[in-house]
Amino acid sequence: MSDSVKYLLDESHLPRFWYNVVADLPAPPPPVLHPGTGQPIGPGDLEPLFPMELILQEVTQEREVPIPEPVREVYRQWRPSPLFRARRLEKALDTPAHIYYKYEGVSPAGSHKPNTAVPQAFENKRAGVRRIVTETGAGQWGSSLAMAGSLFGIAIEVFMVRVSFNQKPYRRALMEAYGARCVASPSMETNSGRAILARRDDHPGSLGIAISEAVEVAAQSGDTKYALGSVLNHVLLHQTVLGQEAMAQMEMAGEAPDIIIGCAGGGSNFAGIAFPFLGAKLRGGRDVRIIAVEPAACPSITRGRYAYDFGDTAHLTPLVKMHTLGSTFTPPGFHAGGLRYHGMAPMVSHVADLGLIEARAYHQTGCFEAGLLFAKAEGIIPAPEANHAVKAAIDEAVRCKKEGRSEVILFNLSGHGHFDMQAYIDYQAGKLVDQDYDEAELAMALAGLPAVSS
Amino acid sequence: MSDSVKYLLDESHLPRFWYNVVADLPAPPPPVLHPGTGQPIGPGDLEPLFPMELILQEVTQEREVPIPEPVREVYRQWRPSPLFRARRLEKALDTPAHIYYKYEGVSPAGSHKPNTAVPQAFENKRAGVRRIVTETGAGQWGSSLAMAGSLFGIAIEVFMVRVSFNQKPYRRALMEAYGARCVASPSMETNSGRAILARRDDHPGSLGIAISEAVEVAAQSGDTKYALGSVLNHVLLHQTVLGQEAMAQMEMAGEAPDIIIGCAGGGSNFAGIAFPFLGAKLRGGRDVRIIAVEPAACPSITRGRYAYDFGDTAHLTPLVKMHTLGSTFTPPGFHAGGLRYHGMAPMVSHVADLGLIEARAYHQTGCFEAGLLFAKAEGIIPAPEANHAVKAAIDEAVRCKKEGRSEVILFNLSGHGHFDMQAYIDYQAGKLVDQDYDEAELAMALAGLPAVSS
Repeated sequence: MSDSVKYLLDESHLPRFWYNVVADLPAPPPPVLHPGTGQPIGPGDLEPLFPMELILQEVTQEREVPIPEPVREVYRQWRPSPLFRARRLEKALDTPAHIYYKYEGVSPAGSHKPNTAVPQAFENKRAGVRRIVTETGAGQWGSSLAMAGSLFGIAIEVFMVRVSFNQKPYRRALMEAYGARCVASPSMETNSGRAILARRDDHPGSLGIAISEAVEVAAQSGDTKYALGSVLNHVLLHQTVLGQEAMAQMEMAGEAPDIIIGCAGGGSNFAGIAFPFLGAKLRGGRDVRIIAVEPAACPSITRGRYAYDFGDTAHLTPLVKMHTLGSTFTPPGFHAGGLRYHGMAPMVSHVADLGLIEARAYHQTGCFEAGLLFAKAEGIIPAPEANHAVKAAIDEAVRCKKEGRSEVILFNLSGHGHFDMQAYIDYQAGKLVDQDYDEAELAMALAGLPAVSS
Repeated sequence: MSDSVKYLLDESHLPRFWYNVVADLPAPPPPVLHPGTGQPIGPGDLEPLFPMELILQEVTQEREVPIPEPVREVYRQWRPSPLFRARRLEKALDTPAHIYYKYEGVSPAGSHKPNTAVPQAFENKRAGVRRIVTETGAGQWGSSLAMAGSLFGIAIEVFMVRVSFNQKPYRRALMEAYGARCVASPSMETNSGRAILARRDDHPGSLGIAISEAVEVAAQSGDTKYALGSVLNHVLLHQTVLGQEAMAQMEMAGEAPDIIIGCAGGGSNFAGIAFPFLGAKLRGGRDVRIIAVEPAACPSITRGRYAYDFGDTAHLTPLVKMHTLGSTFTPPGFHAGGLRYHGMAPMVSHVADLGLIEARAYHQTGCFEAGLLFAKAEGIIPAPEANHAVKAAIDEAVRCKKEGRSEVILFNLSGHGHFDMQAYIDYQAGKLVDQDYDEAELAMALAGLPAVSS
């Protein structure tokens, strides 16, 4: 048996800053616009929602943003996370490719989300905020923020997409174990929630709706702020610890990736693994293919429009330019709940628009098949979201075999699947189908995009 | 915020041998007896059940048993596991005690069980065995062996206690994801199972029954062996990587434990953390209190008899001297399924009988309360079994506060609770009660102990 090899950094390699790709891009990203005036917003416009330190991180042009020491101290609980060479998977595929994966399932919440939950809770606490309101899809983000809130002593309230709230009671229980309050969305607690329920009282919810509810609550309370687990620049920034560690670990392994792969819902784990490598390439370093993998049922980069849109359903957020399926688009209820967002992070959309990354979309059953192959070879059962990255890595390794090329593939295994076993039960029972989005609904959602000339 | 501190060993500190406490004990453990003759058995008597290499590990007197290199290669995926100082918990308790915990939840199966699953699968594979049959309670052992089986390419069949099979579909799904076959026990597939079901067709099962079924299948098939996830000497031996790593890590921390704590069902994670420290003490090293914590509903050390008994319900196993509640004893259905065994590891029983360790028993609600306090302070939600150790650590830390003593407490956090959220849901909903075992049933079970003079 050729075995898996772990590359573990000692704590002296825990990054001291987050990496900001903006500093290295050939063109700046389009501005965020005020929905009323159509004009670029300033930091002050975001103050009702975020503490100023996070707003400054959102708009900074600096290449390196220092990580506060109290955040690094919490990171140390599970970071640097391990990077593995998947030798047993390579053997199972009989591929000349070298497959590496960064593994974020070792965090207390089992995914990459604590990388941003911790600094967000810290900066809110430092700013005197008493409560943070957020939304969650599959529950990975909500449970991570609940954990961070309990560590820093700050109250957390989570609007959880109703279909996940019902399907994933254990994620909800985890949030409650950390002391958070968890509400099914759409709820009767907000105007946006009540408006949706008035039209359809069994509405399954969506991330866009849950964001509206959380933003509404935060905007109305003086001691309460809002937090988002993906999409925004500062969230992507926080996740770059991932790619920075992976660069050092690949160096330990004596190799450099030819291909970097991440699954992309809001875009943060993808950006986290990819942007540090992309930055190195843009600064004249080694060329590398970078692939974002999204679900075929919610394919914002591959099938959406690059346009200004709202981040939420009730149109309470500013307008951001991103690859979007339209803020009213509701994807079918597939099992990778963390990838069910109508838009893509503006910064990921921007680098896609600049031609710096590739994107592809996969149906879910092929992803579960890939995930089980990976689990049997490597011993780790991936979260359904991460299976999209696993499938892309396997597909590339199979291509390498056909072409007789020994390329180096690195992907991010963003979380373990211990909370997602129902999805595997359904897959193994043959109950999962490959759902496509509704073309008519997509057309309608795109037709409803706000008219902004930019 | 005073933060948690991690002590991480690099791979050069991955143990090269397992530690065998027998070599350092003041008296040898009582022999294992043949149930027919009442005479000590020899290695050959165990050959229908185990490969010879594991039998030799079972009976060896050597202090150090080399860990085969292919086993160390798999260990490297998650070992050495981290050891943390729980500074935030200390602060929450306002205790002068220093609390350290070894964390086994980073393994692919989320518990300490892969430490023995991997060498057991390896030795069976090396001996040409085609299939391993085992039993599992909560599913931690079954999923770990399923994982190890998939890594080494050996078929795994698991008899899972029916009450857990029904209550914990996700653990079963994990086993099946790794390719194992999982059967609810008692089943119609064995004589022992059919006999139980004939008496009561809705029997909830027990570890003792599931062991009978697995042993029966293994004994009847030429290419099939049996595996046990705790209790036996070689299983405890495999877990000593835990304590050896912890010794090196405590040295890194510049402290030595005054108290070592582990939860004890079959006894393997407790022995794994404790025996290396106990051995050092017996060889003239530092004194240390060692505490085994068991559930009040299944208290083999604290309320059982130290006597020869069968390991299983159908009396297919040899007779071992251990603290036992009687092989017919069925504990109430509390939530720490991994602690629901009628006996205690013979080696743990022996050191308890020698007065080298302490034991105590806790009811479950206090353990869940302790687990939630721990989760909120440290960010990790423990498995219900591990909560018993958490509660003892907290109780000792509170005592230290009362006595104004700054003792050093080390406990083993044997697994995460991501598969056990239903138990937390039940606890938080006030549905958990503190069940005691039935005194009459215990008396009857003890009265049924086999008559052996030794």
